[in-house]
Amino acid sequence: MKPTSAALLLLAGQAVDAIDYNAAPPNLSTLANGSLFETWRPRAHVLPVSGKTGDPCMKYTDPKTGLFHVGWLHNDSGITGATTDDMVTYRDLNGGGPSIVPGGINDPLAVFDGSVIPRGINGTPTLIYTSVSFLPIHWSIPYTRGAESQSLAVSYDGGRNFTKVNQGPVIPEAPFGVNVTAFRDPYVFQNPQLDTLSDSSVGTWYTVVSGGVHDVGPSQFLYRQTDPDFQYWEYLGEWWREGVNTTWGDGTWAGGWGFNFETGNIFGLNDEGYDPEGEVFNTLGTEGSNAPIKRELSSIHDLLWTAGKISNNGSIKFTPTMAGVLDWGASAYAAAGKVLTADSQASKKSGAPARFVTYPWLTGDEYGQAKLFPTRQQNWTGTLLLPRELHTLSIHNVVDNELARETGVSWRVQGKSKSGTLELKTLGIDIARETYNALTRGSSTDESDRKLSNQSTPVPFAKSPENKFFVLRANLTFPQSARKSGLKSGFQILSSEFESTNIYYQFSNESIIIDRSNTSAAAQSTSGITTYNEAGRLRLFDVVEDGAEKIESLELTIVVDNGVLEVFANGRFALSTWARSWYAKSTGIKFLHNGVGQVQFSDVSVSEGLFEAWPERQ
Amino acid sequence: MKPTSAALLLLAGQAVDAIDYNAAPPNLSTLANGSLFETWRPRAHVLPVSGKTGDPCMKYTDPKTGLFHVGWLHNDSGITGATTDDMVTYRDLNGGGPSIVPGGINDPLAVFDGSVIPRGINGTPTLIYTSVSFLPIHWSIPYTRGAESQSLAVSYDGGRNFTKVNQGPVIPEAPFGVNVTAFRDPYVFQNPQLDTLSDSSVGTWYTVVSGGVHDVGPSQFLYRQTDPDFQYWEYLGEWWREGVNTTWGDGTWAGGWGFNFETGNIFGLNDEGYDPEGEVFNTLGTEGSNAPIKRELSSIHDLLWTAGKISNNGSIKFTPTMAGVLDWGASAYAAAGKVLTADSQASKKSGAPARFVTYPWLTGDEYGQAKLFPTRQQNWTGTLLLPRELHTLSIHNVVDNELARETGVSWRVQGKSKSGTLELKTLGIDIARETYNALTRGSSTDESDRKLSNQSTPVPFAKSPENKFFVLRANLTFPQSARKSGLKSGFQILSSEFESTNIYYQFSNESIIIDRSNTSAAAQSTSGITTYNEAGRLRLFDVVEDGAEKIESLELTIVVDNGVLEVFANGRFALSTWARSWYAKSTGIKFLHNGVGQVQFSDVSVSEGLFEAWPERQ
Repeated sequence: MKPTSAALLLLAGQAVDAIDYNAAPPNLSTLANGSLFETWRPRAHVLPVSGKTGDPCMKYTDPKTGLFHVGWLHNDSGITGATTDDMVTYRDLNGGGPSIVPGGINDPLAVFDGSVIPRGINGTPTLIYTSVSFLPIHWSIPYTRGAESQSLAVSYDGGRNFTKVNQGPVIPEAPFGVNVTAFRDPYVFQNPQLDTLSDSSVGTWYTVVSGGVHDVGPSQFLYRQTDPDFQYWEYLGEWWREGVNTTWGDGTWAGGWGFNFETGNIFGLNDEGYDPEGEVFNTLGTEGSNAPIKRELSSIHDLLWTAGKISNNGSIKFTPTMAGVLDWGASAYAAAGKVLTADSQASKKSGAPARFVTYPWLTGDEYGQAKLFPTRQQNWTGTLLLPRELHTLSIHNVVDNELARETGVSWRVQGKSKSGTLELKTLGIDIARETYNALTRGSSTDESDRKLSNQSTPVPFAKSPENKFFVLRANLTFPQSARKSGLKSGFQILSSEFESTNIYYQFSNESIIIDRSNTSAAAQSTSGITTYNEAGRLRLFDVVEDGAEKIESLELTIVVDNGVLEVFANGRFALSTWARSWYAKSTGIKFLHNGVGQVQFSDVSVSEGLFEAWPERQ
Repeated sequence: MKPTSAALLLLAGQAVDAIDYNAAPPNLSTLANGSLFETWRPRAHVLPVSGKTGDPCMKYTDPKTGLFHVGWLHNDSGITGATTDDMVTYRDLNGGGPSIVPGGINDPLAVFDGSVIPRGINGTPTLIYTSVSFLPIHWSIPYTRGAESQSLAVSYDGGRNFTKVNQGPVIPEAPFGVNVTAFRDPYVFQNPQLDTLSDSSVGTWYTVVSGGVHDVGPSQFLYRQTDPDFQYWEYLGEWWREGVNTTWGDGTWAGGWGFNFETGNIFGLNDEGYDPEGEVFNTLGTEGSNAPIKRELSSIHDLLWTAGKISNNGSIKFTPTMAGVLDWGASAYAAAGKVLTADSQASKKSGAPARFVTYPWLTGDEYGQAKLFPTRQQNWTGTLLLPRELHTLSIHNVVDNELARETGVSWRVQGKSKSGTLELKTLGIDIARETYNALTRGSSTDESDRKLSNQSTPVPFAKSPENKFFVLRANLTFPQSARKSGLKSGFQILSSEFESTNIYYQFSNESIIIDRSNTSAAAQSTSGITTYNEAGRLRLFDVVEDGAEKIESLELTIVVDNGVLEVFANGRFALSTWARSWYAKSTGIKFLHNGVGQVQFSDVSVSEGLFEAWPERQ
């Protein structure tokens, strides 16, 4: 246990027996409130001082200060935020208190996600958010008319407080006569293509509201600014709708569209980053369910992205050209992003261009379904995931075969070279560069390259990390024979004689698996600590290197920030989850290999310590 | 003072010195609370047990019971109602308590006027009313967006309570982007002409919402039912709009359109009464102002009617063909009516056909501007006026001259007879027949016919009434020479050596005047008791009778119900006001005549006592 936790517990005014992380855990729900505060708490992530983190939202670069603002639903009672000038460290706004809370005339019951026009009313940051008047709301039950509306709030104090505009909602209800499943999470954006297609003034703001139509399908409702005070938003139609509970392709590469869309974000990208003229992307959460459907239960939450074409043949339409998963973790959802401008403080320091930076959410209690989790003992629930820069990613020299040419996938063929290889395009997902640099600037140990074949016993690292704050990077190269084999290879982390978490690539289903079945000794003593496997799909293409065909190397970046585990691969894959190891000694790392075929591990390094994202917090 | 008032005062727990109505009044605002309760309280009128009466509304015939429901805004905090089975006596709903109060999610600040679909949701009486979220609202100040919306409430208990439908408003705000001056008083109606013109199903319900557009003019917003649950009301446009502060014709016959419309009622009439296929009428209140305009002050309130044509040349329009005044009294406003069906209990008893019955409001404190009126002493403020049956009225045998042919007036030429005389059409305004019969069934005294010429001293009746509850009826016939003369003739009522109220017709401006300058001794001791003249315009046409041209007789019906004075004339004129005489002895009636020319008074009768409209009240 870290010293700071003792201080925190004293602050809470409670005498708490020290917890022994060298002994088997008790039933954690019997412990004193707050006693598990530090047990799994990340240090390099964005999360509030305490309490429950909900959807990230309210992101923006303040043009006056160059600070990037990051907000999140907090304790189901409003939006709390922080700022960063370097994408590494954060400063609480309002001392960690909320910037806006429900209880007004428009939002008597709740404030849901909102997004910010940086130069809004009178040039001031202006929030458009979902004001909630009736609950419950869920796609599985009839919608209470007028339950959700979109209202404005303006900040006059640098984003600490957003003051509700003293009037009714600017979008008072869902489109006329539409029996919606939801109507929330307004996302404001500008897009020159839309300006042209909809014959709008250059620089017009648009708002996408997420939801769907009962018995028809999930959709996004598009609105357009009509006046300088952002009062009247003209409805341009359901610019994107999918069928109820359908999938992109066969669902392999982009999960399911489910029954309802949430948290749609629209932005343009090129290979460098944010580009308003670039390819149009759409990140979103989809609410799905396994059969049979239960009332008010979304048993599936997919965090997806799509790229698409915008057209206007009588009405504005967004038509996906490819779709994928922004984060494959079952707990990862509801990402919210915004352009981090080139003149933001962070970009100016790092020399980065304008980027679209998004923060997914990692629910801490399985979307409220892990009811027996020792929430009071931990005193915080959920976190934002590391900020990610999105961009279009080119994959070069890809062999022109059925693996590349498959349709209904998360990439598209951009072109063919003279030599006959393909260039593929997909969404590039990187940890924000400043964050990544800070994560990996700690003391670093390189593990020697090695080859493993037909090995079934994990091979310990020469040097494992001292604690549970580290970044493990490695490249794994597979023989072409691996493609059709049962080969699995990767790493065992957070390992001791009592616990371990296996992360490996498995060719049989082209997936990265996180096997959490032995992750936590606490899972046996305590309910609510889930142990199911996490899995995400990544195709390693056949590529031509130096004239020879080979399987693309697996490039892994694994971030362990105490209980938070994020796995990135090949600049286009992310899978995040909780790994709640109990024992202090569970810090071991081992090479994993299972099945037939030699695997080459190279560039293996471990950077320890990460960083403290909240230097000003007590 | 009547015995019941003593009881009431005892109920109020206060010992009150008896007030001497035979002596000069003190400053009434120095008296004990409640001590003036009976002083001017009417007995045959609809008003609540106590407190402030606002706009009448929520009228309907309950198809299950045949009872006619009459509601009104009460104490600025909801709507209270009563029922009648005979248009004479009334029974409080909810013991005089409200049927609906503000404070819900849709109406946190106020409930404004609503109207009822008798067979609404699930066949049950359904109220659509204005739910208020932001105040102040006034045409003279910027409109707070979303301040007024239209919401539903349903009665499951015979109209005693209207339970708000647990959802947002059905018309959540004014039409998109329209900078309204107001958006309230939804009035539901059916109209076969509209069904045809708008290609709607037969029996479709329409709603007119009253208001206007800043800097453009007052208007009515028309909506159409689209679903059996009355959820979605399709906007059909501003079906009627007038220019800011313009008038009908030169304003002589229909006051001014002002800056904002309120309380629009739409219905069809024929000569017998209500006829959905008949001529379309529109009653409304208009908010106007003398110059200079003061913030939040409507110094003029006109209670008007129009008849008009409905057309659809791309959009549905209502175009007035004639317009008049429903009641000329400065305090008469905001009439609300509804069809009293042929199968209502009242109509079945009286044998009457379906009628459109409307109750104007008589503000008791000059729309809140009589701030020093002894309101606490009286313990009630304002009343509804007597119910009025509306119908189209034919005026036959009218000489075809410029008096009849004038345009911009409150009548139109319907046709010309073979003999060359005209038939005119206008709005007929009668006291509801059952009410009228009850008012005049008391002990009646006929005054002998008499002729007066060049008389300047009022001539007392042979028998004046004993008290201040009576109906005076008379016909006055004028020589043709009167047309261009200064002749004034009528009656002095509520008369004693200390007080008197003069009601007379004055040819110079074709007006019926109520001179209240000497009406009340209390006006001298107490502020807030107004003494200004009331005036309304009535043209007495030249008609042919038995082959000879003459001026149409003036047919007067004057109802005195204690402090409430209503003057009706010729089946098409109404002027109501307060006449707050003080002295018990001020019950004398005298003939009035002033100017040159002989006036014939005939059929002069006084019916005393009126009736108790509230037999069940303690």
